[in-house]
Amino acid sequence: MLAVHVAIQVKPECVEPFIEATRMNAENSLKEAGIARFDFVQQQDDPTRFMLVEIYRDEEAALRHKETAHYARWRDTVADMMAVPRSSIKYTTLYPDEAEWRCS
Amino acid sequence: MLAVHVAIQVKPECVEPFIEATRMNAENSLKEAGIARFDFVQQQDDPTRFMLVEIYRDEEAALRHKETAHYARWRDTVADMMAVPRSSIKYTTLYPDEAEWRCS
Repeated sequence: MLAVHVAIQVKPECVEPFIEATRMNAENSLKEAGIARFDFVQQQDDPTRFMLVEIYRDEEAALRHKETAHYARWRDTVADMMAVPRSSIKYTTLYPDEAEWRCS
Repeated sequence: MLAVHVAIQVKPECVEPFIEATRMNAENSLKEAGIARFDFVQQQDDPTRFMLVEIYRDEEAALRHKETAHYARWRDTVADMMAVPRSSIKYTTLYPDEAEWRCS
């Protein structure tokens, strides 16, 4: 499976609206068939920094996610909140095994 | 809950033994009462780089993990495999809600 870690830093005044928009996007993303997880965490020593941990069944599921209405809404809503452009790193999952990733 | 992301880079010749030792540690760690997840992923564009995504109930669970026999064995086994010292970042989980983190 494919894990995408997206590092995000927002402007200090945007922390709360960013959390709200991203929670909604995570909730909707988790309903996509190809997404096993969509975790959202906030850095403890710098609350303007966040990480999205997205687990996809495969590359195609990641592409399909970018075509959803909720992704487009999130992307447009948060565009002006970024302090710096966001960056992402792609990983292949090693543990747990595939069947263990989906929680629901 | 507390999320700890541990970034690891190993020497190229250590990739396979590192994966083996870390899988075993992840499997044992997931049996700890205070650990909800212990995910292990490998960077796609550089297979010597890995990330551990550790989800703890609280700070105390993270401390207790460091006192286990499987952690000590892993730490000693991989000590000479590191290409650079590993680094970690602590996050607070925002999504999903607490009840959703534990898969099993």
